[in-house]
Amino acid sequence: MARYKFTLEYDGSRLVGWQRQRGGGSAQQVLEQALSAFLLQPIVVEGAGRTDSGVHALGQVAHADLPEPANGQPWNLYQLRASINHFSVPHGLSVLEVAPVADGFHARFSALRRHYCYRISMRPSPSVLLAGRQWHLAQPLDLAAMQQGAARLLGLHDFSSFRDSRCQAKSPIRSLERMEVVADMINPYQLELWATARSFLHHQVRIMVGSLVQIGLGRYPPSWIDDLFAARDRKQAGLTAPAEGLYLVAVDYGADTPKPPNSPSHKSDRLG
Amino acid sequence: MARYKFTLEYDGSRLVGWQRQRGGGSAQQVLEQALSAFLLQPIVVEGAGRTDSGVHALGQVAHADLPEPANGQPWNLYQLRASINHFSVPHGLSVLEVAPVADGFHARFSALRRHYCYRISMRPSPSVLLAGRQWHLAQPLDLAAMQQGAARLLGLHDFSSFRDSRCQAKSPIRSLERMEVVADMINPYQLELWATARSFLHHQVRIMVGSLVQIGLGRYPPSWIDDLFAARDRKQAGLTAPAEGLYLVAVDYGADTPKPPNSPSHKSDRLG
Repeated sequence: MARYKFTLEYDGSRLVGWQRQRGGGSAQQVLEQALSAFLLQPIVVEGAGRTDSGVHALGQVAHADLPEPANGQPWNLYQLRASINHFSVPHGLSVLEVAPVADGFHARFSALRRHYCYRISMRPSPSVLLAGRQWHLAQPLDLAAMQQGAARLLGLHDFSSFRDSRCQAKSPIRSLERMEVVADMINPYQLELWATARSFLHHQVRIMVGSLVQIGLGRYPPSWIDDLFAARDRKQAGLTAPAEGLYLVAVDYGADTPKPPNSPSHKSDRLG
Repeated sequence: MARYKFTLEYDGSRLVGWQRQRGGGSAQQVLEQALSAFLLQPIVVEGAGRTDSGVHALGQVAHADLPEPANGQPWNLYQLRASINHFSVPHGLSVLEVAPVADGFHARFSALRRHYCYRISMRPSPSVLLAGRQWHLAQPLDLAAMQQGAARLLGLHDFSSFRDSRCQAKSPIRSLERMEVVADMINPYQLELWATARSFLHHQVRIMVGSLVQIGLGRYPPSWIDDLFAARDRKQAGLTAPAEGLYLVAVDYGADTPKPPNSPSHKSDRLG
């Protein structure tokens, strides 16, 4: 057995989220079933982040221990990837990269930081080509006000107001490394919100987005973010933004888990 | 009654093409049914181009004669658009713009030129988020060779080799104003082919794309295009590229059909 790292893209609208569910249909199960079908034995995978139902991934990371091929040769990583995709792509999950990693590598516990992107469309007419791929708001948002609110979210805070009531994390303290509101250069109706942290609380990104949208709509000033930190009350913050706009873009790991030169990877794999 | 021009986006994967079909489900019928449902009388629409089943639109154009509102006031074009979208968006068609036009305006016969875009992904792993939105080839294509082939397609030619055997156009002569092969600046796996002409033969864009791909794969040199023109034989050219990669991006009209200042439009509406 040897440990492998998988970089994954998936269509959240076709899955019930990352985590294994009794009824099946989760990204974790699609990957496990593809590996098991190909390797003819049960395989268990662990993921970096438990994305909710409807949330997309452009760069989710998982690991699994795989048996060596029967011929004693190491896996051809391109063939391995193609074999998994043969089973998983029809279910909405595509493996972008397979790489051998050290036995101590753990997709969840070795992760240094997670990068999320949230897409909002302010276009009056809903986009039918991007249905289920963004939050269609159809109202102009005050970009500058949202950017000021986003800046106040940065750093170490008690995010109690920004976590779902079912969140099981022991501490509500998190450190937000990046929170940016970016206008699309070509399409003035398109907005992206980028968030980076070592880890996030349950629904944290979507509640932060929902709160920044309240600021963008002019219902609260950017300083409202400070009030929400002080309140430590989920009910004070904005609604949880819909899952369909959220993308897990990438997960960072340390230099002790380097990418071998022969792995079938490319950064820009994740863009299209 | 007064004539209106509609700019339309639709998801080709959810429709059986533009043109009215006995079984329903065409873009034309979705728009007609939305207008009829809202105006409580049968409405007939005419489109600029008869896109095939599976082909998407970012800027298809149609026209229809609509009754004036019962209150004697002119239509509020924003409300009119929203009312149509209420009925049409669930079926995969979104109205981007509604504008009053002169009675002589005809979406098909007044059109000066049509712009199409064809998207190809060369990424090894299929994109599950863009499934049905591009041709997944997964093989590297020689961009320079394709560009040389594209340049040879430009201008006035007998396109007999590039039209479907069922094409009913009287003449196979067409003038191609633009045929460009463009690499994505960020994503090296993404290719776009742009074609512009006053009008196209049946499947012409998709057969030109299929032939340029043969050149991109190194199976023929760029000068093969000249051989195809000379052969005037559909069987000599490349396969018809899949419908799912093709987008009708825009249709141009003359200055005699100006866009009224109060129409709910924006060029960049069409981008997202």
